[in-house]
Amino acid sequence: MEKRFEISLLFDFYGELLTEKQKDIMDLYFNNDLSLSEIAEINNTSRQATHDTIKTCEKALLVYEEKLKLLSKDYKLKETLKKIVSELDNLQIDIKDEKMNQLIYDIKTQIIGNI
Amino acid sequence: MEKRFEISLLFDFYGELLTEKQKDIMDLYFNNDLSLSEIAEINNTSRQATHDTIKTCEKALLVYEEKLKLLSKDYKLKETLKKIVSELDNLQIDIKDEKMNQLIYDIKTQIIGNI
Repeated sequence: MEKRFEISLLFDFYGELLTEKQKDIMDLYFNNDLSLSEIAEINNTSRQATHDTIKTCEKALLVYEEKLKLLSKDYKLKETLKKIVSELDNLQIDIKDEKMNQLIYDIKTQIIGNI
Repeated sequence: MEKRFEISLLFDFYGELLTEKQKDIMDLYFNNDLSLSEIAEINNTSRQATHDTIKTCEKALLVYEEKLKLLSKDYKLKETLKKIVSELDNLQIDIKDEKMNQLIYDIKTQIIGNI
């Protein structure tokens, strides 16, 4: 997985464990795509200090993932659910009964809501 | 949810975020059902110190849940998956084709593996 994308995902999972200040900086950098200099200016600090904060946060997020493995567990679960949806798709091909088809459709909708 | 049971579940989710020492004490208390005095003796410390450590850990676990909500998200997901299994059970009642029944059975098995 591309590093920046991975950190961005980890921030979604563990962002709440960072401080408000750290969250703001990470949000500006990863979600609003601002440059280090722009973030430094907003916070009235240096580009280097902003860079250091982001690196500290990245390390913290990677440690959280190492300990809790939420991202990898979530990925595995979603892969399983996608596989199930595809199997239900196959099942629908063979089912002609409209009521049963509707039931499978409803089940798929519920699963997709969790992917 | 009964408090002790809730803390025990939270410990399963967030235990890795505690220190090794804290984890050991929580494990003895919640998983091995030792008394405060017994844990104090093992760690060559006082009953009060053991009690304080457990209270500190309980607070930390509750804060993690407040921030990350893993337990409540997991509970909701499992409820949805259980509902889907029960709907697949209903679907099977109406399906006479053995191959299709096997397919539904396989899908249920995959879902149950995640509950």
